[in-house]
Amino acid sequence: MAQKPSIPKGTRDFGPQETAERNYIFDTIRRVFLTHGYSQIETPSMENLSTLLGKYGEEGDKLLFRILNSGDAFAGVDFEKPLTSQVCEKGLRYDLTVPFARFVVQHQNEIGFPFKRFQIQPVWRADRPQKGRYREFYQCDADAIGSNSQLCELELVQIIDEVFDRLGIRVALKINNRKVLAGLAEICGAPDKVVDITVAIDKLDKIGLDAVKEELLGKGLSAQAIATLEPILQLNGSNEQKIAVMRSQMAQSPTGLKGLDELEELVGFIGKAGVKIAYEIDLSLARGLNYYTGAIFEVKALDWEIGSISGGGRYDNLTGIFGLPNMSGVGISFGADRIYDVLKGLGKFPGDLGYSARILFANMGISEVEYLLPVASALRRKGVAVEIYPDPAKLKKQFDYADRKGIGFLSITGGDEVAAGTVQFKNLATGEQKSFAKDDLESILAFINK
Amino acid sequence: MAQKPSIPKGTRDFGPQETAERNYIFDTIRRVFLTHGYSQIETPSMENLSTLLGKYGEEGDKLLFRILNSGDAFAGVDFEKPLTSQVCEKGLRYDLTVPFARFVVQHQNEIGFPFKRFQIQPVWRADRPQKGRYREFYQCDADAIGSNSQLCELELVQIIDEVFDRLGIRVALKINNRKVLAGLAEICGAPDKVVDITVAIDKLDKIGLDAVKEELLGKGLSAQAIATLEPILQLNGSNEQKIAVMRSQMAQSPTGLKGLDELEELVGFIGKAGVKIAYEIDLSLARGLNYYTGAIFEVKALDWEIGSISGGGRYDNLTGIFGLPNMSGVGISFGADRIYDVLKGLGKFPGDLGYSARILFANMGISEVEYLLPVASALRRKGVAVEIYPDPAKLKKQFDYADRKGIGFLSITGGDEVAAGTVQFKNLATGEQKSFAKDDLESILAFINK
Repeated sequence: MAQKPSIPKGTRDFGPQETAERNYIFDTIRRVFLTHGYSQIETPSMENLSTLLGKYGEEGDKLLFRILNSGDAFAGVDFEKPLTSQVCEKGLRYDLTVPFARFVVQHQNEIGFPFKRFQIQPVWRADRPQKGRYREFYQCDADAIGSNSQLCELELVQIIDEVFDRLGIRVALKINNRKVLAGLAEICGAPDKVVDITVAIDKLDKIGLDAVKEELLGKGLSAQAIATLEPILQLNGSNEQKIAVMRSQMAQSPTGLKGLDELEELVGFIGKAGVKIAYEIDLSLARGLNYYTGAIFEVKALDWEIGSISGGGRYDNLTGIFGLPNMSGVGISFGADRIYDVLKGLGKFPGDLGYSARILFANMGISEVEYLLPVASALRRKGVAVEIYPDPAKLKKQFDYADRKGIGFLSITGGDEVAAGTVQFKNLATGEQKSFAKDDLESILAFINK
Repeated sequence: MAQKPSIPKGTRDFGPQETAERNYIFDTIRRVFLTHGYSQIETPSMENLSTLLGKYGEEGDKLLFRILNSGDAFAGVDFEKPLTSQVCEKGLRYDLTVPFARFVVQHQNEIGFPFKRFQIQPVWRADRPQKGRYREFYQCDADAIGSNSQLCELELVQIIDEVFDRLGIRVALKINNRKVLAGLAEICGAPDKVVDITVAIDKLDKIGLDAVKEELLGKGLSAQAIATLEPILQLNGSNEQKIAVMRSQMAQSPTGLKGLDELEELVGFIGKAGVKIAYEIDLSLARGLNYYTGAIFEVKALDWEIGSISGGGRYDNLTGIFGLPNMSGVGISFGADRIYDVLKGLGKFPGDLGYSARILFANMGISEVEYLLPVASALRRKGVAVEIYPDPAKLKKQFDYADRKGIGFLSITGGDEVAAGTVQFKNLATGEQKSFAKDDLESILAFINK
């Protein structure tokens, strides 16, 4: 016997239920993106390596899946030189951001700005596979590029609000601004210590104020700088109060003040737009510092421990590397795999995702099946998912089939029903059973939809 | 300036409109598959090369995209031996059929049989790119495996019927049976000449009976064999009449008779189920002869010249190669790229595919925008796609933005409207303009939906 086949490590097969559950997440996100005026695009799975290399750091370059040139890849190769670059010109996309930047530059004369696009596609990374980390996984990204307005940030907050509201996941949104963090470091006279400062702020709850001050001293901040920081470390109250405190401390940093203006405008917009989500300014949020230049977002589920399930921020120069400078934009990304785990963990997937038929017509023989064919067609035309069991197998086997697939209704139509011109349906959950004239579609629909 | 970036040859970017049009095709096919009780699954983009190699012939093996092993692929390589197999263990899937067979065998204990699945995913082939042929393209496949019943064939015919009915494409369905073709060759005493015979039948319309007979003589068929074939070459009339003629000629071939039984049962089912599609038995249909063992289908558009846009058939031993013998199944595949070309060519895409917002709220300044934020949110909650222009740009620029994106309604709300508590909408197609109380959602919806 042949060896039982398998799939590459870090990849997954998705069966009917899992695929339906994943589609539910993607469809929900897609619908929300669309109602906010974002348009879907798709880019190829493969990009030229010249597009991908150098965009994700040295570590990222190593994690690219490279595709062997087709034809005889090794013909004419110089074996004295590094081989990989000679035999591979293409790679699988590593994220959706670089392909998006490439798309914007390549199609800049066809698209209008601001350009609001979303993309829901798989990406590939040669990461070491481990729990919750895969070598092929979907990203769901929305970006608005070509405007500096905080209304773009607002729109992404509204999208986050509505996506998780529709999915039924309670979340908290944290907001920060990269310029405010830069301002903090500036007023400490340590513009290169942004990371140390945000890390220390993040530890405040766990280790307390004194230990944080100790740590900052250890990182080389002066006692005076730490005194300046102290009111900000102890920041409390409403978002507006936090901004007021920071504004008074940051008067000497134009960058910091600019960041506070942005934060204040965004918080004002959010208040006026009326979102359901809990949101707060959190200075310890330091997501993607090398990349973001303005607002930063992060979303966590309140009822399930799993880390961030959505996040994003504003960047100033996404397309510069491809020759189109000064394109500011802001984007968010939804982590579909983690959202899946949250929905699964909390039991929040809707009951009927429609991955199996609603009705199974048992096969009692050719003439009964022929009698049922028009009934099945009529129901399908009404959008009801219907199967006729293909073989006249034992009823037990047909019943097991319905059970295994989670089919809700079984119709056992034998010679008596054919003679009477009726069809019988049984609700497999409640056991309720009823007969209908075979063309009384309306009553049949009422029975299976009640 | 950096070089303008590009994508690998044979691959494509899809912009907002094209993505929406393609989704319309995929969603239509998906919905029809689902109403017939087929469940969606997804398999990884990469498969082990051991799964893929040898399944598509020598030519197919060459067209596989191979993925360089991650880490240092060339460490420990023996340069005296062929390199490709040493440095590549994975490849991109070449079709959806082999991954499906692998899936069935790998998950045989989790899934129930008959197993009806569909898959809509991209595949990759290192084919020479040319018009209409791409290196990355989607396949849309449905298969039912684990039953010999002609009801499975019927179901696929019903799916074809409904997909093209929903898409508004008039098509003709041709049906044949591999066993009938084998029977024809048998009664000619030339069981190895199946291909020659079907090719000759196919030419009948073009070159006439005498030339076809000439050709068959040239291929080595005896005059007596050709005389036996003649009534079949001149086959005419209804599907039932065709079957009757063949049955009388093929009495000596059990295989042929079995094929005729299958054809007759299928044609009977189709008649009883009531399909709209034009269908006929066509002996010249010789699709995938090495692969199929029973029914064969092919669909062509009646109003657009492009070759087959859907096809499939029954196979006897899909999973044998992975160690699970005797699994008969039947499948069809829809050619999304060709269907796209037909819909585009005939102008049959629906007008509003919803890839842009329905309403653009012009940005007349911060206070006007803040006034509009709750209106926009309320409309989005009703499912209406709405944008607020992010910057207070010149009205001309904002109007051009709406025009370029095909947004149907523009709302210009200035200080007067804010003072009056109203919102104004203009239908950009008709020029009609109307004011509403800002929370009179019902009237606003009526105006934009009429």
